[in-house]
This record gives sequence, C-alpha cells and structure tokens, in this order.
Amino acid sequence: MKFLTDKKITIIGAAGMIGSNMAQCALMLHLSPNICLYDPYLPGLKGVAEELLQSDFNDAEIKHTDDIKEALKDAEYIVSSGGAPRKSGMTREDLLKGNAEIAAELGKNIRLYAPAVKHVVVVFNPADITGLVTLIHSGLKPSQISTLAALDSTRLRSALAKHFKLPMNKINNCKTLGGHGEQMTIFASPIKIDGISLLNYIGTEMLPINEWNEIKEHVIQGGKEIIDLRGRSSFQSPAYLSIKMLEASIGGKQFKLPAGTYVNNNAFHNIFMAMNTRIDCNGISYKTINGTESEEQQLLYSYLHLCSMRDEVIKMGVIPEIKNWGVLNPYL
Amino acid sequence: MKFLTDKKITIIGAAGMIGSNMAQCALMLHLSPNICLYDPYLPGLKGVAEELLQSDFNDAEIKHTDDIKEALKDAEYIVSSGGAPRKSGMTREDLLKGNAEIAAELGKNIRLYAPAVKHVVVVFNPADITGLVTLIHSGLKPSQISTLAALDSTRLRSALAKHFKLPMNKINNCKTLGGHGEQMTIFASPIKIDGISLLNYIGTEMLPINEWNEIKEHVIQGGKEIIDLRGRSSFQSPAYLSIKMLEASIGGKQFKLPAGTYVNNNAFHNIFMAMNTRIDCNGISYKTINGTESEEQQLLYSYLHLCSMRDEVIKMGVIPEIKNWGVLNPYL
Repeated sequence: MKFLTDKKITIIGAAGMIGSNMAQCALMLHLSPNICLYDPYLPGLKGVAEELLQSDFNDAEIKHTDDIKEALKDAEYIVSSGGAPRKSGMTREDLLKGNAEIAAELGKNIRLYAPAVKHVVVVFNPADITGLVTLIHSGLKPSQISTLAALDSTRLRSALAKHFKLPMNKINNCKTLGGHGEQMTIFASPIKIDGISLLNYIGTEMLPINEWNEIKEHVIQGGKEIIDLRGRSSFQSPAYLSIKMLEASIGGKQFKLPAGTYVNNNAFHNIFMAMNTRIDCNGISYKTINGTESEEQQLLYSYLHLCSMRDEVIKMGVIPEIKNWGVLNPYL
Repeated sequence: MKFLTDKKITIIGAAGMIGSNMAQCALMLHLSPNICLYDPYLPGLKGVAEELLQSDFNDAEIKHTDDIKEALKDAEYIVSSGGAPRKSGMTREDLLKGNAEIAAELGKNIRLYAPAVKHVVVVFNPADITGLVTLIHSGLKPSQISTLAALDSTRLRSALAKHFKLPMNKINNCKTLGGHGEQMTIFASPIKIDGISLLNYIGTEMLPINEWNEIKEHVIQGGKEIIDLRGRSSFQSPAYLSIKMLEASIGGKQFKLPAGTYVNNNAFHNIFMAMNTRIDCNGISYKTINGTESEEQQLLYSYLHLCSMRDEVIKMGVIPEIKNWGVLNPYL
C-alpha cells in the first residue's frame, strides 16, 4: 500500500458526521498511514476509531485521543470540522460567536502544539470567519490555511447540468466567490456550457432570466435544501471535498475549485473569503478573475458583508483590532 | 478518470446511513461511472444524490429513483442495505421476520428486472438469512450472491492487535465462520500473531484464558459496542467493506475476508453462512478450513442455529420447504 505521505494527519471533530467521514476518506485515499482522530466526545470518538479499525485499512495506524495536545503533537496536516453544527433554520451567521471562539482555541492550540504544521483546512461555519480567526491566532502564513468553499461552486455546476440536461463534465469553470454564505457571488461570466459562454444563454429561451434566478437561489439555499431533504446538514460532500483539499496540500492532485483564503490586496483588505484559488504542495494561492461590472459589484457587497462579520468578531474580543493582528501573527 | 467497469451498479437503500456511504465509496473507488441510487424514501434519496452530485465526481453519472423497476433495469451489480436497521437492544435475530420479507421482495425484483445481474451483495441482517432468501427468490447461482460477514473477522483482528500491541498487519488469518450473529465461530487455530500461531499464546501469560474469552466476547458484541459508543449502528465499516466485496466481484482486488455464501456440502446442508471465501470476477467460492475439534463443534452448533432460523423463515412462508427450492431456483 502506497501513501501520499508518512507525516501525521490530525482530524479534529472526528466523532462527528463530517469528521468521521473525513477520516474514512483520508484512509480510502491513502493520504498517510499516520492518522490521529481527535474529539472531546470520547465515546463517539472511540466508536469511529473502532469502525475504521474494523474496515481492513491494515497498513494504516489509526490513533485516537481526546487530548488536544497529544492530537496536535507533530501533526503536519490538520483538518478541523470541530465546530458546532448548523441546525435547521439557522443561518451560517447564527453560528458566528460560538464557532469563532472555537476557531480561536484551534489557532492557539496549533501555535502551541503543532508549530511545524504545513497546512490546515478549516471546515466549520461560517468558514470565512473561522478560517480568519484560526489564521490570526495560529501565527501561520496565509498560504497555510484554507477553508471549504467549493460546495457553492459544485452546487452551481450540478444545477446547470440538470438545467441543460448535460453531463457534469460539460459544465466548466463554475465559480462562486466572496462569502461562503447567503452573500456569495456567483460569477456567471467565466462559465462554459459545453464550450459556450453561459452569458450567451442567460435571458434567452435556453435560460430565461427567472430560471437563472431560480438556479442562483437554489445554489444559495443549497445547504438548507440538504437539511430539508436528509434531516441533517450535508456531511458527505464537505468531508470528501475537504480531504481532497488536504490531499492537494500534501502534494496530490491540485485542488482547483474555489476555497476560502486570506486576502489583502488592492481591492479587499484583511479578509478571508472564497477566491479563484489553487491548492498544491505550496499551500493555497489565488488569481483574480475579472467579472462583469455587476459581478464585481456583487463581490464587493459580499466582501463588505464579511467585513461586518469580521468587525463583529473583533467587538466580541475574539480577535484583536486589525492594526494589532501583527502582534499575534507576523505574516498579517 | 478510469473506472473498473462501465456496467450499471445499483445501490439499494441509498438514503440510509450505510447505503449513502456505499454510494460514496463506489464513487471514490471508481467502480463505475454508471451508478443508480434507489430508496423508497424519496426526500432522503434526493438529498444523498445531491450531496454526491456536489462532490465533484464529474465523470460519473449519478442517477436516483424510487422506482425499483427502473433502478434494477440493466443493473449488473447490486448491493443492498435496504433492510430495517438494528436498534439498541435488538439482536440480529429480532430483525428476522421483517427483513426476511424484504429479502424475498428483493429476490423477486432481481428475477423480474435484473435477470442479467452478475453479482449481488446483501448487507442487511440477519445477513445469513437475507442472503439465503434473496438467493432462493432471485433464481441466481450461489456464486452470485454474497453477504457481509467480514466485520466479525476484522473486529477479532483489531482486538488481537490491541492485546498484543502490534500493528494490524502483523495479525493474520483471522476468520470467524458460521453465523454472522451471536453464534459465530471464532477459528483461533489458523491465526498468526507476527508469524506465530495464536494457539501457542492462548492460556499462557501472554494471553490468559480469561482475556481470550473477553476478546471473543468483544468480537461477538462488537456491533452492540458501536451502537453504545456512537448512538447508532456501525455504518462506515459495513458500507466500505461491502463495496470492497462488490469491487472484487467486478474484477478488482480479490476479497479474502470471510463472506456469507450458500453452502451445501457433506457437512452442512442448504444453508447460507460465513465461510473461508474468496470473491473475484467469478463470484464467491469457498474452501474448507480444518479447525480444532472444539472449533469444528462450535461451527456445527453455529450451523444448527442457522438451520433453526432458516426453518422459522420456512414456517413463516417467506421461503418454501427445502425440497421445493428447486422450483424457484434450479441451481439449488
């Protein structure tokens, strides 16, 4: 059995639905034989560890612990779904306070116990905020932390494939940027439908404007729809995709769907949001996409919404004022 | 993206915890780009299909339907976890009546709608009975139906690895045969601990008899322990292992852990039980293991327990008397 690395991977929140699926994915994708599962809820954690030990992954060593210090010691890759889950009726933003505090704790623990970590994938919502808070408190470089944001883009692609009755691989370059929440920005202009620009179709009988608006609404409400259908938050897709992000950071197949990343450029300042990113063994980086004027405006609106959430978290005292970020993290 | 086959795989019970994980495993292992998910519970099924459509498996076509005829049409490989789940406090046998009837329906539907099926993996409990009932009603050859029984063996290996503080791959040839229930037979004699026969250790200070009995009890109660720890039946390990069984039947890596198979030889008659099996592109076959006298006796006891369950199902009218099986299935 060949593994992508022999370095330690720590999965935080492994007793949960997302975390346990992440652990299974990491083993199935042969990321490392050195897997450590962490969760503060020990019975559930033991149950997950037992299930995986009983799954015939014989060449992997699957450890588990409810001691965060032991979990993070020598970890080179970390993925955390260890936030409070979103419940029916809650927006991602409702989760803000509790999960921002959990992210601060995560960042501090990484600084203390896993200073040599190479990459961290943060999956709990609101991911743009939890990613930012983790980054500030961990002291890591911006290229070392990414957050899951791909689901909005894959939901968009899936909806367009259905609308145009085409296989998924005929729908290309679907990107939603900005906030990974209700203020996301859907970039229609780069999308190709079987090689033809989506813009050529919007507002024609192939895709009347009201149907395009329905698709956008479906994408924005995608997470809620899964809750309504399954009676629980989506867990298989976030688990699988975040492990694919981690795989890319270890040096496996590059991850080209949008991910959340730290942005501080001419247009957007001191923020964490979904961009046109790439994850590879050097971590996460992004390139700017030029959209239509209205797309750019929507992205600005999305950015401003994220700024207000960030400022709320500053007011809560979970992260310092922007001018003092450098005290905690010299890379910011 | 290369797939193992382009033939249709149908996953029955796909809205459930095991079935949805099976679907994810089948996609992650690239078994086929032609995956059909079936469940009578349409909202949950749609939710699972959406999650998988949103997981970036772009070269696969993931269909779903709550119409069993459409689901089975042209299916060449079928895996079913579509029974009623086991709840805390229930034995596998408590499930007998309801799930035997579901298995009869499955067999009849396979006969009607999927006559060209190559292999069927049955996962719902009591698997020895549901496998037998499906076989009788489907009219398939005994080599075409296998049931999940590997978890008892992998639980045994995991427990021995823990006891001897060795990595899992140093514990070899763990096999539990006979019933996949509380009357399972643990064959200790073939087991090697880092190359040395387990029999050399049992009853010594390395493995006192009471500790060996505890390990056996742990294996027998393994399923219940997961329920107690996770608050739900195990689903990741049965899903993954049954998809590994299906993979082997398609022509992927051979599956060498014990599986349930139809047995009618000099020692055991007209029964379905875990044997020393192999699954490959020719289906499932078995070789006899010679155990110690007490192991053989235990296996006989396990067989007799299965006979009494089988006879109960005959009395219920779910399957005919043994002498009339040939009317439904000429291979029996």
